[in-house]
Amino acid sequence: MTTDKPSVTVLGLGAMGTALAGALLSAGHPVTVWNRTAAKADALVERGAARAASPAEAVAASQIVVACLLDYDSVREVLGTESLRGRTLVNLTNGTPGQARRFAEWAACQGADYLDGGIMAVPPMIGTPAAFVLYSGSAGAFDRARPALDTFGESIFLGEAVGRAALTDIALLTGMYGMIAGSLQAFALVTADGVPATDFAPLLTRWLQAMSGWADGAAKQLDSGDYATGVVSNLGMQAASFDNLHRTADEQGVHSGLFAPLGRLMQQRAADGHGHEDLTGIIELLRKDDNA
Amino acid sequence: MTTDKPSVTVLGLGAMGTALAGALLSAGHPVTVWNRTAAKADALVERGAARAASPAEAVAASQIVVACLLDYDSVREVLGTESLRGRTLVNLTNGTPGQARRFAEWAACQGADYLDGGIMAVPPMIGTPAAFVLYSGSAGAFDRARPALDTFGESIFLGEAVGRAALTDIALLTGMYGMIAGSLQAFALVTADGVPATDFAPLLTRWLQAMSGWADGAAKQLDSGDYATGVVSNLGMQAASFDNLHRTADEQGVHSGLFAPLGRLMQQRAADGHGHEDLTGIIELLRKDDNA
Repeated sequence: MTTDKPSVTVLGLGAMGTALAGALLSAGHPVTVWNRTAAKADALVERGAARAASPAEAVAASQIVVACLLDYDSVREVLGTESLRGRTLVNLTNGTPGQARRFAEWAACQGADYLDGGIMAVPPMIGTPAAFVLYSGSAGAFDRARPALDTFGESIFLGEAVGRAALTDIALLTGMYGMIAGSLQAFALVTADGVPATDFAPLLTRWLQAMSGWADGAAKQLDSGDYATGVVSNLGMQAASFDNLHRTADEQGVHSGLFAPLGRLMQQRAADGHGHEDLTGIIELLRKDDNA
Repeated sequence: MTTDKPSVTVLGLGAMGTALAGALLSAGHPVTVWNRTAAKADALVERGAARAASPAEAVAASQIVVACLLDYDSVREVLGTESLRGRTLVNLTNGTPGQARRFAEWAACQGADYLDGGIMAVPPMIGTPAAFVLYSGSAGAFDRARPALDTFGESIFLGEAVGRAALTDIALLTGMYGMIAGSLQAFALVTADGVPATDFAPLLTRWLQAMSGWADGAAKQLDSGDYATGVVSNLGMQAASFDNLHRTADEQGVHSGLFAPLGRLMQQRAADGHGHEDLTGIIELLRKDDNA
């Protein structure tokens, strides 16, 4: 098969790396794969991927190299002895913004044009419209790799500050874990009363979707630093009615430790004289150095 | 004006009570209002509402009485000396399931047909399709009052267990506060890097909406008690990558106390031998008496 699509190397064939290589194959890209345990490549090789015997062979095979390994140290270790001169390295390994910045310095020394990425999807979503992937770092690398990257899902470039994709990825996960923690607590409350979780789930989903627009209003307050305009239900009222969450948890025999920290911050912020403002203002208590 | 729509009395004209009375007026119901501070009724009276001089006069005016006061004790106090015989009492005051059950006993002694409710909306949403209101208690009261109640938003009857509406209301609020806590933490992370909150908000909303379907899958696991089937990303992997949330918060100068309890529960559940299962299983640690 001949193709004018650029060839791509994928390093690391866990569930995510396998999904990425599969999306590239489906789109008609020549794909070379490498994995420490070579057998993990078998299914992809059957679909037409070339199996590299070593990281060096894998890097030599394509101008675009996509890494999806356990962590940044693993990528450094796997690539450690290879020159990456002339290569576009796209690292989709999970990490922190600081790890991304340090890795970018190392990649520059190796001669690579470096793009850092964060995948906002689980492996089954790769290649579907539901997936989106955040990128930051070299704009040139993003432009060059983009036709390949777009096979994974929607590609969103966040600029040349290389830590930005990892930061945004972690921030979105943090938001998600908040939603999951709140939802698990909610499920614990209703199931304690004999309500099937599957009866409650549609109401919960509907409610959370209706409330997800909260972020837009909160963002305007956060950027202005004015938490007292556009208040519908002020912090003082919310802090008072928050007690009902604790009381209900007690009544239902459910621990309330998951949301206790939010209640404490609400009370502290109200006690600090911000009871007439919006809940949003408690962000000030999350910042270690308040230079405002 | 003559109308065949039933007349309704609204007790309590805070922001929510005022919105409820306004929705009834807009739909053409004869409305009688009472509030301790009588001036709060002025705008509604201008729109055609009748002002009652006392709770007794208010209760006498309509077969359907809607209460929206500070708490259950306030409702008892306001209605305390009135007979409610023949009246359909719909109490939309916030409270716990236990408070709702105790209030229902009192209302039955007063001769009222009692319906308890929880409003899933802020006052500006009342009368729009975005609002929904949960009800539980007397099915007859629900049927009778329904034409009036439907003017507030979608009416959802949860059955005759009278505490069910309050429980579901509190559970949904708990889920929402989890989402808000996670979102505030997310905003703190990105704004510490100079990212405008208004740039980040659309990504956050999109991500949370995409992930809100999580509840459906989780509900199936919760009802079956089988947390090991359909696992995409197991608890052990998630507990390990959760460290990146703490590290990133440290890097960005943000406290991580809001989500620390979830991290601890994930680690404990993994340490208890459930690392191969889904995150959902940590609900077992939320239950004080695990009789499973």
